[in-house]
Amino acid sequence: MTKKAVVLVSGGLDSATTLAIAKSEGYACYALSFAYGQRHSRELESAKKVAAALGALEHLILTLDLRLIGGSALTADIPVPKGRSADEIGQGIPVTYVPARNTIFLAHALGWAEVLGAQDLFFGANVLDAGGYPDCRRKYVDAFETMANLATKAGVEGKSRFKIHTPLIRMTKAEIIKRGHALGVDFGLTWSCYEPTADGRACGLCDSCLLRKKGFAEAGLTDPLPYAPP
Amino acid sequence: MTKKAVVLVSGGLDSATTLAIAKSEGYACYALSFAYGQRHSRELESAKKVAAALGALEHLILTLDLRLIGGSALTADIPVPKGRSADEIGQGIPVTYVPARNTIFLAHALGWAEVLGAQDLFFGANVLDAGGYPDCRRKYVDAFETMANLATKAGVEGKSRFKIHTPLIRMTKAEIIKRGHALGVDFGLTWSCYEPTADGRACGLCDSCLLRKKGFAEAGLTDPLPYAPP
Repeated sequence: MTKKAVVLVSGGLDSATTLAIAKSEGYACYALSFAYGQRHSRELESAKKVAAALGALEHLILTLDLRLIGGSALTADIPVPKGRSADEIGQGIPVTYVPARNTIFLAHALGWAEVLGAQDLFFGANVLDAGGYPDCRRKYVDAFETMANLATKAGVEGKSRFKIHTPLIRMTKAEIIKRGHALGVDFGLTWSCYEPTADGRACGLCDSCLLRKKGFAEAGLTDPLPYAPP
Repeated sequence: MTKKAVVLVSGGLDSATTLAIAKSEGYACYALSFAYGQRHSRELESAKKVAAALGALEHLILTLDLRLIGGSALTADIPVPKGRSADEIGQGIPVTYVPARNTIFLAHALGWAEVLGAQDLFFGANVLDAGGYPDCRRKYVDAFETMANLATKAGVEGKSRFKIHTPLIRMTKAEIIKRGHALGVDFGLTWSCYEPTADGRACGLCDSCLLRKKGFAEAGLTDPLPYAPP
């Protein structure tokens, strides 16, 4: 029987590549996304297209009230930084960090995996380019994995040994783009910008746009997304 | 400055007693509840009354789509067991176990704690009477705590050392009731039944009712809740 995997799919290029990797490893993939009050909800439209294009068997979109918790430029009225240099982006934890967000996402993924009878979770965490997010580090993921196997019926009864795969964790953005490209990911379906323009183009200036543009440049590939003129 | 604590409040008597304990220890308490699709949503009305009666500074009720994940008698069309003996209730993991539910709850509590600047979380987990829930054991809570301090900006920057308090973990239901009673908890505000009758009385037969009734009997106190006639 084909092994099932739950794959966190945000609509960005990292998670699209992660889904393509899980599929290339032979998993039957169940895509999971969240409408969590993020200002860039445009990415959910991309998540749907990515999940469909890469053959996810199901795509579950859960709604969360993270704006009621706030504390981030993505979920509260805190400005998204614009025009920062690569050095600035790499230093410290950015205001786009959402408190406990990845823990909340992985917790739901764990619950769904248990119900599906899946042991494998795929999470497109990556530390190199945007070094600051605590919940994108492998030691955090390892701690989550340990907790997950104590938290669940499947783990305790020894039916499952949950494993959280982070295939991108040590890759640069350029390496991720090259890998996704090789696996046939259509990056025109993905979305990265935190604050799109009113006419639906990427701003080109937020950290996420800047990392994406730098990654495509270094990979020697053309980004198919439309950007607002500088 | 008074220390803040986030307290998970379900509306049941365990979490009401936990909130009373947190308050008695001098914490400024922030109550957190979830409308997660549970069949006994009556408990949320109790959560509101409990939070108000015990002086929570805020009471946040978050909505989750756990019925979309399912896998439990509380969130899917699986019958709630009735009339089981204490021995039966204590054995194995019951069908009222909700996959990853407490991990999802604690993850949100962690996010809110980080935003509030709180280091302390209170969780009314208890292992003795209902021995089967994997995510009510202290070793699970310890693993969550380790993960939490790696997951968060506050943890990584050393501003907070998150601690998850489980004051009830080794108490019997009778001991919890006596402790709550001594702290002035009005158990008439709480709710335990998984499947109330149409006229709003507790069924008296689900595991949760049976444990509650046994606890009051052993504590030598009168349960103020109305029960359906046997």
